[in-house]
Amino acid sequence: MLGLMQNRQLLISTMIEHAQKQYGDIEIVSRTNEGPIHRYTYKDCAGRSKQLAKALTKLGVIVGDRIGTMAFNGFRHMELYFGISGMGAVCHTVNPRLSADNVAYIVNHAEDKYFFVDLPFVPLLENVESRLNSVEGVVIMTDKAHMPDTKLKNVICYEELIQSENDDYVWPDFDENTASALCYTSGTTGNPKGVLYSHRSATLHAFSALSGEGLSFSHKDTILLVVPMFHVNAWGIPYASAMCGAKLVLPGACLDGRSVHELIEKESVTVSAGVPTVWMMLLKYIKDAHKTFSTMRRTIIGGAAVPRSMIETFKKEYNVQVLHAWGMTETSPVGTACHLKRKHEGMLDDDFFALSAKQGPPVFGVEMKIVSATGEELPWDGKTCGRLLVRGPWITSGYFRGEGGEAIDAEGWFDTGDISTIDEDGYMQVTDRAKDVVKSGGEWISSIDMENQTVGLPGIVEAAVIAVPHPKWQERPLVIAVKQPGATVTKEDVIDHLSKSMAKWQLPDDVVFVDELPHGATGKLLKNVLRTKFRDHQLV
Amino acid sequence: MLGLMQNRQLLISTMIEHAQKQYGDIEIVSRTNEGPIHRYTYKDCAGRSKQLAKALTKLGVIVGDRIGTMAFNGFRHMELYFGISGMGAVCHTVNPRLSADNVAYIVNHAEDKYFFVDLPFVPLLENVESRLNSVEGVVIMTDKAHMPDTKLKNVICYEELIQSENDDYVWPDFDENTASALCYTSGTTGNPKGVLYSHRSATLHAFSALSGEGLSFSHKDTILLVVPMFHVNAWGIPYASAMCGAKLVLPGACLDGRSVHELIEKESVTVSAGVPTVWMMLLKYIKDAHKTFSTMRRTIIGGAAVPRSMIETFKKEYNVQVLHAWGMTETSPVGTACHLKRKHEGMLDDDFFALSAKQGPPVFGVEMKIVSATGEELPWDGKTCGRLLVRGPWITSGYFRGEGGEAIDAEGWFDTGDISTIDEDGYMQVTDRAKDVVKSGGEWISSIDMENQTVGLPGIVEAAVIAVPHPKWQERPLVIAVKQPGATVTKEDVIDHLSKSMAKWQLPDDVVFVDELPHGATGKLLKNVLRTKFRDHQLV
Repeated sequence: MLGLMQNRQLLISTMIEHAQKQYGDIEIVSRTNEGPIHRYTYKDCAGRSKQLAKALTKLGVIVGDRIGTMAFNGFRHMELYFGISGMGAVCHTVNPRLSADNVAYIVNHAEDKYFFVDLPFVPLLENVESRLNSVEGVVIMTDKAHMPDTKLKNVICYEELIQSENDDYVWPDFDENTASALCYTSGTTGNPKGVLYSHRSATLHAFSALSGEGLSFSHKDTILLVVPMFHVNAWGIPYASAMCGAKLVLPGACLDGRSVHELIEKESVTVSAGVPTVWMMLLKYIKDAHKTFSTMRRTIIGGAAVPRSMIETFKKEYNVQVLHAWGMTETSPVGTACHLKRKHEGMLDDDFFALSAKQGPPVFGVEMKIVSATGEELPWDGKTCGRLLVRGPWITSGYFRGEGGEAIDAEGWFDTGDISTIDEDGYMQVTDRAKDVVKSGGEWISSIDMENQTVGLPGIVEAAVIAVPHPKWQERPLVIAVKQPGATVTKEDVIDHLSKSMAKWQLPDDVVFVDELPHGATGKLLKNVLRTKFRDHQLV
Repeated sequence: MLGLMQNRQLLISTMIEHAQKQYGDIEIVSRTNEGPIHRYTYKDCAGRSKQLAKALTKLGVIVGDRIGTMAFNGFRHMELYFGISGMGAVCHTVNPRLSADNVAYIVNHAEDKYFFVDLPFVPLLENVESRLNSVEGVVIMTDKAHMPDTKLKNVICYEELIQSENDDYVWPDFDENTASALCYTSGTTGNPKGVLYSHRSATLHAFSALSGEGLSFSHKDTILLVVPMFHVNAWGIPYASAMCGAKLVLPGACLDGRSVHELIEKESVTVSAGVPTVWMMLLKYIKDAHKTFSTMRRTIIGGAAVPRSMIETFKKEYNVQVLHAWGMTETSPVGTACHLKRKHEGMLDDDFFALSAKQGPPVFGVEMKIVSATGEELPWDGKTCGRLLVRGPWITSGYFRGEGGEAIDAEGWFDTGDISTIDEDGYMQVTDRAKDVVKSGGEWISSIDMENQTVGLPGIVEAAVIAVPHPKWQERPLVIAVKQPGATVTKEDVIDHLSKSMAKWQLPDDVVFVDELPHGATGKLLKNVLRTKFRDHQLV
């Protein structure tokens, strides 16, 4: 027997519609590529998102079409989030820090019909344009006055595009399971894989973000969105902000400590969200410049494990509470958020910081378990490590176009590839990555990919890539290679070679040559041995 | 193109499962019918709900069966909420204050297969048992020691029933649109009509309750649930509490001021939820007894318009913030909650109380509009009155077994039967029930507004305003009021008081004083009774 409730669908358009009607006067503040600070309201954003949807319709975009974006956090990117998804097309955010090869692969794999690009990324797009098979036109996200000279073909100016339309547009109604957004993971093996979000998953995830065990956002907040909008829906914060009417501050390209601090103070930011690297730069800046935070009392950190020392510094020096969260592209992303529970009230500092360094309990909607290598469920004792599996309505069920085969098991569990403990109170802590990805400033660098590229250089027999701790980027890649007898390959040769296929920030900080690499019984590289041996290796 | 997100269903069982795993140590405290305070945890509640589901299965209950309950707020009622719905059956809460005729009608209409009854209602059920067609057995919600002598047939003791089972039960998985609960409206005309909730609607509604623009519940709260569990899912609070791990306090049968205040203080309640009548009793008690609230800082009031005077008293005398909410059985119920917005920060007291007396903006998920008699959409100007229509995933699409015909129009709007304004900021205010508004010479006079103004006059306890036929104006307002014992308020005092805030043509033509006003089963004023009684009242 079915209930007799209205069959209203959970759609992203209803979020911006709600913001328009209920929070029409609340500001969205952006640092622009053109220079000045831009400010407008949710009402403006809603109207322009509708203009965009009309313009895209006129360009022939229909439900299900993929539309690429490569942009910093700014108001036009917000309009893409709502305009593209709202009309039923798929907002495909592309990470501009990927190599040209990867960008070309991803855009072709997604079959993006149009591509929206921020000014600073026009040269990058010019480089790959000839290899893009599906893109019918490139929209440069600026106004007429700032349009660059470009060799791109079929170029459209964003402001001209939308100004040709009015905002007399009614968001269409459709199945909430319709695809809304697409984001590729930079996986450790094989090609990048696309995670395809739905309107339903985005809405449920945003509902969770508004709860006290999620990210606790409300209309009282001014949120500084440092996490890039090309990363996993910017953690769903554009959606959640519209739903609750939070003021939103978008920092554009300037993520240095001074610029971020200036925005926090000028806009009276109450909460920020981003990866540890940005906060390291910020903490360094405010320490050196003897600054404080007048209004910011919370910061949400994820994307990589947060060092306990950072949590302590924020709390003790600046009275800012760190909310440590965990997730991945495949989980929309928020899976856990490390809130204290009732029993932790009055906890001593030492216990508090130890607990806060965990990734925390799963939010409602996400189920978790840890399993052994044979799939047996392991106890929640805070000590036993196992592969972390998750399940829930905003967890992937498989990758775009079936890449990578089955992503979930018969009971619907997704293997995160993380190795974790879960304690008696349900707090999850990631202890290791099953694969050996290098986490550099919130970005992942595939060690296996780099190894494969390295051995592609004549004179190299074998290579291992491991992460070495780094004070600013947390981890940086170190290549450990074995030369062919008599070969004269140098460190510079390796880096030159890798730079042909990798972005600059992905390149290894050092290359060392050894006589042989350690292997296990089945021939697998023993990276643990290398990690121990090179733990104190000085990167140059 | 559909997204590639997991097809996990939104089920009520996942709420109690989450509470069991994440908030297993958090208490549910109940004042019992047997006498003492009972306390146990969500873990206990989850385990016993599973025992109940197993026992019901053994009794032959299957997915879709309706199971009746007639009980106060207590831990066993919680187990019915989760055990019955969790197994896929329908938890049909019956209001014990209904007449025997209505109870018999409703139980037969629902075709309840089993019926769970609290000790105090056994006599009521004995009276109607012979007229019940579908009930195969009655479960008395107590232990063996407290089982009453009863003439009921096929009687089962609750504790014996569930103690025969262990908690080794896996909640079944099914479509989230499956019916979860059933609640009949006590309409003033025609037969009661059943609203059939679904697992989906209950989950989305609970998500909303956890948000800052909903009821803002979190794991930090201790919630006193005064609103009866036989009223509209107890406003969804049993579900929301389990989802967020709030401590829950269930007051049983004792809703007098002293008992309620005692529970609030002893259990360190932070927020309570109920209808205005209970708070009137509570406020009277704490004033007379010179008490205060040590921990309670919020109270959520709905079910009837909250008089501004009550909001002022709570705030000024006791530092308790009233959250005025609006909803109805057909809306699960929360449709609006009167939070202040950013622009209202620093608002002066007078404006603050005027705003707080509105029902507030719709929560995300609920769309609202006001329309004229001909269905034309009316402006949001805070002045124009129209019929309030609502739409959303937790709004009814029709009544059980098609009673009352079509409940929604072609665009999915449900007519609430309320007359409202909506202001520029989206704040809805109910000015009257469509059937209660006084139509005087083509103008509308709000009976609710006049009632609220009248009870703001010292010496007046309660007031009802009805339309009385008038030869020239068609209808004119009549105030029927109850004085405080010993008060010397006169008709002239009332009219003087009202004239401060109302236009002359809006003032009542007469004021009569009575010893008490008639109320229905849910505490609502029975204006029909008054209309009949005062049909021939001679206006002066």
